[in-house]
Amino acid sequence: MVTKAIGWGVESSTDAPHPIRFERRDLRPDDVAIKISHCGICHSDLHFAHNDWGMSSYPMIPGHEIVGTVTGTGSSVGGLAEGDRVAVGCLVDSCQKCEFCSGGQEQFCVEMPTFTYGVPDRHGELTQGGYSDHIVVRREFVCRVPRGLDMAKAAPLLCAGITTYSPLKRWGVKPGHRVAVAGLGGLGHMAVKLAAAMGAEVTVVTTSPEKAEAARSAGANDVLISTDEAAMTAAAARFHLLIDTIPVSHDVQTYASLLRPNGTMVIVGALEPLPGFSGFNLIFGNRAIAGSAIGGLAETQEMLDFCAEHAITPDIELIRADEIPMAWKTLEKGDIPHRFVIDMSSLEPA
Amino acid sequence: MVTKAIGWGVESSTDAPHPIRFERRDLRPDDVAIKISHCGICHSDLHFAHNDWGMSSYPMIPGHEIVGTVTGTGSSVGGLAEGDRVAVGCLVDSCQKCEFCSGGQEQFCVEMPTFTYGVPDRHGELTQGGYSDHIVVRREFVCRVPRGLDMAKAAPLLCAGITTYSPLKRWGVKPGHRVAVAGLGGLGHMAVKLAAAMGAEVTVVTTSPEKAEAARSAGANDVLISTDEAAMTAAAARFHLLIDTIPVSHDVQTYASLLRPNGTMVIVGALEPLPGFSGFNLIFGNRAIAGSAIGGLAETQEMLDFCAEHAITPDIELIRADEIPMAWKTLEKGDIPHRFVIDMSSLEPA
Repeated sequence: MVTKAIGWGVESSTDAPHPIRFERRDLRPDDVAIKISHCGICHSDLHFAHNDWGMSSYPMIPGHEIVGTVTGTGSSVGGLAEGDRVAVGCLVDSCQKCEFCSGGQEQFCVEMPTFTYGVPDRHGELTQGGYSDHIVVRREFVCRVPRGLDMAKAAPLLCAGITTYSPLKRWGVKPGHRVAVAGLGGLGHMAVKLAAAMGAEVTVVTTSPEKAEAARSAGANDVLISTDEAAMTAAAARFHLLIDTIPVSHDVQTYASLLRPNGTMVIVGALEPLPGFSGFNLIFGNRAIAGSAIGGLAETQEMLDFCAEHAITPDIELIRADEIPMAWKTLEKGDIPHRFVIDMSSLEPA
Repeated sequence: MVTKAIGWGVESSTDAPHPIRFERRDLRPDDVAIKISHCGICHSDLHFAHNDWGMSSYPMIPGHEIVGTVTGTGSSVGGLAEGDRVAVGCLVDSCQKCEFCSGGQEQFCVEMPTFTYGVPDRHGELTQGGYSDHIVVRREFVCRVPRGLDMAKAAPLLCAGITTYSPLKRWGVKPGHRVAVAGLGGLGHMAVKLAAAMGAEVTVVTTSPEKAEAARSAGANDVLISTDEAAMTAAAARFHLLIDTIPVSHDVQTYASLLRPNGTMVIVGALEPLPGFSGFNLIFGNRAIAGSAIGGLAETQEMLDFCAEHAITPDIELIRADEIPMAWKTLEKGDIPHRFVIDMSSLEPA
């Protein structure tokens, strides 16, 4: 039996977010029903709402940083019971058979993963995200929120957390490494906290001197102002890894020059065409420019456990649902060094 | 006592190669004197001769793909004796103390490694390379040519071999992997042979349909013509690793699109500024664009041993010293799918 739901969303690419009533599907045998307590606001929600990437369908309830409690399970679901604290990130389905799904990288499913909102699912219905009162999700795409993690603060981990955790792990950050984080928004401040927890010495690279305090309070040992040419030159060849969270096109070479030999910069924010770079700098130093997209489900659970163990949480600003338009406007003006999280108890009933 | 030497070289950036008489230093305690039997011609010899990279000193005897036999050793040199078959590559000295030297990457010595020719050495004298009858080199920079490797064919391994071996090793090529090699010149044809010996399925990507036969005879399973848009689209997301040997600036994105998720393309030829690329393609696929420069001494020895064990040798065209001008002109017109090697017995006596 379908259930009535309410959320905040848009009905076209030019629409402003407003309350929308819609329906969630009846539980399939492998589904979990979740009462959403909080949902983070990711900058990509704005891109999807505005159809910046040409793949959006409407009406659209955004939101892929979802936490809540289980209210029901399908007949074949084991290991989860009513009241369990759970989380859902950017993905809600995939083929579960291909080499990438089998290898823990559902985000690269050869049949395309199903994103949490704004796209047709594998049954032809539009997915609707977490700016809403409840959601129904296939068991395999539900993570547990470990004991000790605050629910509101756990929400942004599902996108900002895993997006920065995954490249830090893949590129082997360890104590003694120097890690630079370019950009100090939702992703950047998580990268700082995670890299510091992994034992790295962390430097934030930013255009904004006024973000220095936020950088240090997130755990950065140092701040480098990217427009200060002398400071940038002095920092050349200094970092083992650079996590580049800048969400718009930018001069990649400026950051690649900061890498030590064998160093890698990982782009996690800028989906746009990026300008050229120096072959010489990459070659003489075995440097690399890489990209990274979220993480698989097992790695997402690992990240949640890591954050609980190390008491890492994003800095958040809790808002009511009717403050979503304000939050979007703020994000449109530029990144902020924390995450907006919607308190879903502020929603009017469905 | 210095020794008289003869070689072929240039006295300015606009000079054509011609015989030049010069002197080699007396043996220091840790030096090895080598009678050169063969020296490969690397495309970078032309760049150095023409001062394309702004770091050349003259007069210059090029050549960093050197093989020969030991004729003398300094008082503290152990493990090498007269008559031993040895090889010298792109480096002849480094600090031997920094973390990169200690870690087997002398090419990234923090005090700058000393290149085999065209630069001042650590005692203020200009280094002179292998287009010559003999050379004196610090012990640590002398490799052994394993039994079974033909001397003439071993020469190009010292640059073309290690330049392609090192990234294949670093990025973990193994049986079952699909490796693409862009460009089929001196580097490209070695990359094909080495990747095939490591068990990979190898595809050559080239603009030149007429190179298909050479590609297959080097061991390629397949050939992809990079101007064939339909074929390139069909090959999208196919390769675990792409070794990009193209020696001039080129559209990197064309090749990056061929990478599977988690795949890496490694640029080994193009030192020029390179054009832009798609952030989206790197991010949605965890792809990487990397560079790689030669290899350290231990890895160079490992590569020579690997080539002997697997009977891998470059395809060479043996020339006399007085054919060096012809060879350079041929290389200036475009890459050839083999390596010119100078037979040093053709030199007139010093």
